[in-house]
Parts: sequence; C-alpha cells; structure tokens
Amino acid sequence: MSKEITSRAADYSQWYNDLVIKGGLADYSAVRGCMVIKPYGYALWENMRDVLDKMFKDTGHQNAYFPLLVPKSLFEAEEKNAEGFAKECAIVTHYRLKADPDNKGKLMVDPEAKLEEELVIRPTSEAIIWNTYKNWIQSYRDLPLLINQWANVVRWEMRTRLFLRTAEFLWQEGHTAHATKDEAVAETIQMLNVYADFAENYMAVPVIKGVKSANERFAGAEDTYCIEALMQDGKALQAGTSHFLGQNFAKAFDVKFSDKENKLDYVWATSWGVSTRLIGGLVMAHSDDEGLIMPPRIAPLQVVIVPIYKGNDQKEVIDGKAKEIVAQLKAVGVRVKYDDNDQSRPGWKFAQYEMQGVPVRLAIGARDIENNVAEVARRDNRTKESVGLENIIAYIQTLLVDIQTNIFNKAKTFQQSHITPVDTWEDFMKVLDEKTGFVSAHWDGTGETEEKIKELAKATIRCIPLDNPLEEGKCILSGKPSTQRVLFARAY
Amino acid sequence: MSKEITSRAADYSQWYNDLVIKGGLADYSAVRGCMVIKPYGYALWENMRDVLDKMFKDTGHQNAYFPLLVPKSLFEAEEKNAEGFAKECAIVTHYRLKADPDNKGKLMVDPEAKLEEELVIRPTSEAIIWNTYKNWIQSYRDLPLLINQWANVVRWEMRTRLFLRTAEFLWQEGHTAHATKDEAVAETIQMLNVYADFAENYMAVPVIKGVKSANERFAGAEDTYCIEALMQDGKALQAGTSHFLGQNFAKAFDVKFSDKENKLDYVWATSWGVSTRLIGGLVMAHSDDEGLIMPPRIAPLQVVIVPIYKGNDQKEVIDGKAKEIVAQLKAVGVRVKYDDNDQSRPGWKFAQYEMQGVPVRLAIGARDIENNVAEVARRDNRTKESVGLENIIAYIQTLLVDIQTNIFNKAKTFQQSHITPVDTWEDFMKVLDEKTGFVSAHWDGTGETEEKIKELAKATIRCIPLDNPLEEGKCILSGKPSTQRVLFARAY
Repeated sequence: MSKEITSRAADYSQWYNDLVIKGGLADYSAVRGCMVIKPYGYALWENMRDVLDKMFKDTGHQNAYFPLLVPKSLFEAEEKNAEGFAKECAIVTHYRLKADPDNKGKLMVDPEAKLEEELVIRPTSEAIIWNTYKNWIQSYRDLPLLINQWANVVRWEMRTRLFLRTAEFLWQEGHTAHATKDEAVAETIQMLNVYADFAENYMAVPVIKGVKSANERFAGAEDTYCIEALMQDGKALQAGTSHFLGQNFAKAFDVKFSDKENKLDYVWATSWGVSTRLIGGLVMAHSDDEGLIMPPRIAPLQVVIVPIYKGNDQKEVIDGKAKEIVAQLKAVGVRVKYDDNDQSRPGWKFAQYEMQGVPVRLAIGARDIENNVAEVARRDNRTKESVGLENIIAYIQTLLVDIQTNIFNKAKTFQQSHITPVDTWEDFMKVLDEKTGFVSAHWDGTGETEEKIKELAKATIRCIPLDNPLEEGKCILSGKPSTQRVLFARAY
Repeated sequence: MSKEITSRAADYSQWYNDLVIKGGLADYSAVRGCMVIKPYGYALWENMRDVLDKMFKDTGHQNAYFPLLVPKSLFEAEEKNAEGFAKECAIVTHYRLKADPDNKGKLMVDPEAKLEEELVIRPTSEAIIWNTYKNWIQSYRDLPLLINQWANVVRWEMRTRLFLRTAEFLWQEGHTAHATKDEAVAETIQMLNVYADFAENYMAVPVIKGVKSANERFAGAEDTYCIEALMQDGKALQAGTSHFLGQNFAKAFDVKFSDKENKLDYVWATSWGVSTRLIGGLVMAHSDDEGLIMPPRIAPLQVVIVPIYKGNDQKEVIDGKAKEIVAQLKAVGVRVKYDDNDQSRPGWKFAQYEMQGVPVRLAIGARDIENNVAEVARRDNRTKESVGLENIIAYIQTLLVDIQTNIFNKAKTFQQSHITPVDTWEDFMKVLDEKTGFVSAHWDGTGETEEKIKELAKATIRCIPLDNPLEEGKCILSGKPSTQRVLFARAY
C-alpha cells in the first residue's frame, strides 16, 4: 500500500496529492477547481468544526446563516473589499434553463430569464452581513453583536490545490460589531488566540501569531492578524486570519448606533475565519512517506483493532475480547473501530490504517489472548509494544495523549530550527533556497521594497510577530534604517 | 409584546410571518427570495441537525461534501431530473467582475470572463454525486455506499415564504447506492421511518407516512415516499421525502458494479432529504397567538429563569439561588438561561420568552426565596404553579417531558380529527372549504383526474398512506372504480 505513495524527497507536491487522495480525504470533481470531500476527510472536518464551534460559543458568539448570493450593488459598496475580490467572483446572471431547440435532450440558458441585477456567489460575507446588521443595530444595547457563520464560499482561483486552494471551500466566518475601537481590537486579538490555541493544541501545528504588512492585508481591513504555520518542505501556510475592520463597513453600509449619551456613531467591526485549508496544513505538517499522521484529539478514528486468526474458533475468541475493549474504549470517549472484515488480510489493513494515519493500532492474535496481551502500534513513530490486556484502556488513553504531545513537539522543533535571522541579501537568498523556512530580516517598512523582494526572492512577509522585539537594523534589500525584523518565507 | 402579533383568526399568513420575524427565527434579506436565519432560528436548526445526524450515523451513513456548482452537461444527463428542475436553476455564466468604465466606483461583469460551460447552482445533488460515484463503485464490495450531505441548495421559486419556500435553503440530502432493488427499497423505507420518528418524537409533529402519486413524484424517481404534516389552518405540509430512484441515475451516469459472480449490473439508488422548511412546519403546527411554542427536545432554550426584585440586596439573594439552579439544570443536560439583565422589566421578559416559545419559565422573587419556592410557568398551556425549590430539578425534568408529550398529543388530536372520509364531490369540496384538513377519498388512479381535481379544488393528493386498507369504491370526480382511498389536501 505505502509503495503507492510518492516520497517527500522524490516529489513533495505529488506526495501531498497522493496522501489526500489515497488517504481518502478528498477527490477531484468534474467541476473546475472544486473537490469532493470524502467521508474520512469530512469526519476530520466535523471534529475540527465541533471544537472550534465550542470555542466560539464559549467566547460568547452565536451562529447564524446569511444568503449565498450577494446582489452586485451590495457587493461593491465597500470599495476596497469589492476591488480585492472582483477578479475571482462567480456570477449568477440567469435563473432558468430551457430545452435547447437545436439539441434534443439538452438544455440551454434561457435568455429571457436574465436577472435585472447580477448576483455574486459570496467570496466572503461582509457585504451581505453588514447590509443586514444595518437593520439589527440601533443602540449601544444591541452591541456587541457576536455572530459566526459556517458556510461555503467561492473564489475563482486560477491555480488550485486540494484543500489548500479550491474554487469552493468550507469555512467559518465571524462578523462582530462593537461600540468602541478598543473592544473591536480586543475581539480581533481574542479570536487570533482562539485560532492559535486550536492549531497548537488540537491540530498539533505550532504557529506564529503576527500582523500582516499593509500589502498583505484583507481587502477592506485596517489590520489583519494571522497565524502562520510551517510545512515540512519549509514553506509557510497562512492558517487563519482575524481582521480589525475599523469603521469601513459601517460607513459603507451606514451602520450607526446611539451611545448612552444618545450620540450617533459608526460601529466598529471585526471578521475572522479559518477554512478547510487547515486540513491541507495538517497533512503537510505531520505526515510521512507511509501516509497521513492524525493528531489524536481530532483524528476521525483514534484506535483500530485488527484480529489475527486462522479459522472461526480463533476468531470467536478474539471477537469476544476485542468487542469488550471496543465497548470500554467507547465508554471513555475514544473513537475506535474493530475491523474484522474477512475480505482483506491483516497486512493490507495495517498498511491502510497507516496510510490514513490512525494514531493507535491494536493487533490481537490467538496467542495474544492466551498471554492476555495485545500488540500496540503507534502511528507517529511507528514503534510497537506488547501490552497486557488487564490495563489496556488506561494505557491507550495515556498513549493518545503522548502521541498528541509528540506530534506537536516534533513540529515545534522543526519550526524553531527554521526561523533563521539573516543580515545580508546573500544570506537571505541562501536560506530561502537551501535551508528554507522563515527568515527573520530587517525591512524598511515600505510596500515598494516588499514588492521588490517578492519579485526577486518569491518570498513574502508572512507577518510581523506579535511579540517582536524592537531592534535597530538595516533593510535587507534597500539598506534603509529599520526598527524591527519581520518574518519572510515562501508560502502556499 | 404579544399585542404585536397578528392573531391566527385575523390573518393566518401574517401571524406566521410575525412569529418568524418577531420570534427571532429569521429575517428578510436583500436577496430576492432568500432569508437570513437569525441566531435563535439557527440554534433550533442546529439542534434538529444534530438529532438527525446521529440518526443517520446510527443507521450506517457517513457525511461527505460535494461541489455547489454542477456543469450543465452533467446536470442534464438524467433527463427527467433535469427537466424537473430546469425552470428554477440559478446559473453561473461568468467568473470575474471588472471596474465599470462608465460608472466610477462600480463594477460590471467582465464579458471576457465567460465560462465555456455554464454552471448550475445545485437545486439537488444527484447529478454531481452520481458522476462521482461512477469512480467510487466498481464491485459489490464497494456497496452499499451510504452517504449524506448537509448543504445549501438554490431553487429559483417564484413565490417564496420564510422557511417554507425560499430560493436558498439548508438541507441534508442522503444519496445511497445498493447492489439490489430490494435493498434500495428497504433503505428508502428505513429513511422515511427515520424522518417520521424525528418529526413525531422530537418536533412533536404527527405525520402520515405514504407514497406519492406519479404526478407528485420527485423528478427522476421511481417512487417518492413522504411524511405529510398538518398545520393549524388545515393545510398539509410535505415535511420530508425519501426516493427510490431505481437504476435511473446509474444508467444516466453509467455506474455499474460487478457482483460476486463477476456479472456487471447497474447500481440501485435512493435519495432522501429534509430541510429548513421543517422549521416553518414546526412554527405552524404548535404556536399560538402569544407566539412560538417550542417542543422541549429541540428547543434552543428549554428553561429561562427571571428574577423579580427591588434593589441590590434582594437581587443578590435571588442570584445565589438562581445560579445554583442553573448549574444543577446544566449538569443534567437542560438548556437554561438566567436572565438578570437589568435593562428590561420582568413583564417585558415574560412576553419576550413567551413569544420565543421557551417551554418553561421560572420566576423567583424575594418572598419566593423566603418560602423556598419558585413560580413555574409552562408555555404550552400557559399554566403557572408554585413549586418547592427542594425538588425543583426533578420537577423541571418531568415537566419538560410532559410538555413534549402534551404538544404532540394536541397536534395528534387535531390531525386525527382532520382526516375526513368523503364519498361525494359535494362533500369533498365542502370539507376542503369549511372543515379543512386531509380528505380521504376514492380516486381512479389516473393523472388526468388528479390534474382536474387540482384545478377544480386547489387540492393535491398528499399521499397514499402506507397502511392504507384496500376498499372498493368510486372515484370522487370521475366515478370510475377505485380500490383504495387516498389523502387529498390543500397544501403549502
């Protein structure tokens, strides 16, 4: 099984596609740039969604649902936002098909069913949501308004990659309204911290929290905060963003509130989102040449039990014990499956579950039952151990925690060893080309220099880390004075 | 508060809209025929979704996600299905906007970004899914394939109603593939039973299970099974459908499998769905002139506690007790809120929670604390009782069960008293016009007669009940011989 996967060394990009497809996470579809999320991939997304959803609710947010389609006149109201997304919008122009008179059995767009105003499929929902908030917000009593939406969005990207960049993707988008600037900024940072907590403690992906340069900001935002992750090939991945929108959308949609002194003012806004892109990051951060590696806390399946037997007598004995273990594991909340399908051999199953990254595999044979043990294999470091059955439940619970920690630590060590300070252009290029990863370098703070660096080095400013120390220095390219280093990288 | 609601007697349709809007379930949007699902309405949908999702998983189904957009050539592959939905399809024809040279700050569709093939926004996903299944199914080992999708769909309806009929709606659609006809039919019936179970035992809405006449079948189905509910105005509402699709989609998309004897055959299919329409049915089945009535099992909020106090000293004493009750109720899984917002008066809160249909309201005043009691009000029959605090948790748990049963029984009694057998056309019209509800009448089995009845009486065959007894009779309109009665009604 594992032989079918291209190795990272041979072709990193093909390795990634192999894992996604053969690991059963997703499949290509007949629609340009769109993918099918297969049951195993969707179960992973459900686990991620449930954890995030609880985090949002615990911080006071409620879910709601807004229309998929946005009238063009609303879409264009906030000009920067509209300009930023105009080039990648799918547009609905008609509302009916009819029989094609020249082509029996075929349909054609009915030219008489042209919409008076075109509809944009939401690439993001600020426009439709702020147009609605206008009716919901009159007074300070209506604030803060803390709403999240789980939805699909469409961005017509020219070059797509499974999960990482697809024309349609699933995401959540939080949209909040506040009475003061301070409160909105605090919300932006709070949600950035929620994302970092989720990435590190559930996905086991270490991230750097920072703020984007003006060039890399979300269209329509005053400030874009982000978490940046590092993939095994040394490229960065923007894993989540939280935007302080100032009063831009409130002004574009005329959303004012009266404060306690009955004075009218525009509302302050934030928006924040993560998407199915995270799954791509998860795959690229942890997996190896044998397949996926799933962090236990969000793994669709945490433990699989495979019986090794000859004949029905042996199978019956193993069945009894295995089902007992399954029941006990389920009782303590472990996601476990007993795979006694007799149409495939144990070796095939082993390879299959390795490919799918199931954290723990138990193999139980007839002799194991006699000795009251099972063979426990962990996916992350591929070690095996014979473990006594009398205490196997507690053992597995501890093991799942260990694996989660181990996966995170491994990624963290890799990340830490791939943040390289450089002080010359030559070193800058050398690190990007050879060592890869984040490069910490001085920059003069201008968009022009940033653009030039992007052109010359194919690297972008990933972020200015939140905990960045001030430090005198000279810009890596222009030589002009700089007050702090920023993180550059090549990125997905 | 309740005075703002139009009464059922005055204007049933306006009463419904008032409840949906003022009860905080949904709001109109700027997009024709589309609504915004507000946090309270979405919380209800989440509860419904979670219950259904567990039912689907308990019957062996997995979730997946397929593209929103369907290329026209795939959409038209199953001709009957395509024909059935062609007239209500939103069509994407372009993938880019550009600055409008004649209109500063405005955007226009970029004519150079016209798609080679138009994309249909899914009105239902059989086409895109069966085109995918083609690649997933080769052998009997790949069957059954039991997949469900939670998604948004768009049907360009000319006349829309909040929840009941909106251009975009949220739903789930199950799509299964089987090796035999019997297995597919059994799946169709199984999911119909799941829907009936959900409607009756969670939504407290009694339903009639039946099969549709040929005229009313889903486009592309061999048989459409349905659950039909009855609203308080005596109109029927189709609350869920489960389709046996035969081999129609397998043939249209060339999905064959090799059986154990290595013989190739087309796969047998089902599809089944329920949508946010159910929320409309829930509202119209139970609510009264004071507002919504939520069945406890899916109510977003089951219990609300309102303090009645003068001054901070009283409030502090009540706070202590109320928070204790909240913690105890949460511990036993009750969804409860303590509303101590001091910006609104108890009377306003009472009206508000009545409007929103919260099943149980506790009011606690300073004297109640002295007497160790609380006033417990139930929303369904609007009775109040003073209940000792020592045993209040168990009391509330029992009460929630009682309310659920009572709401169901009330609706069931109404339904049972509104299934009227008639034998003459005169009685048929009279019952439809005056008594309303389901009319059980003989029909000659032809589509022509069915059409004529629809024209004359504005009533449709809702279903042929599954447990229908055979009975000789004469068609209510044509007088031709008939072997069983069917259920007619005017419907949403």
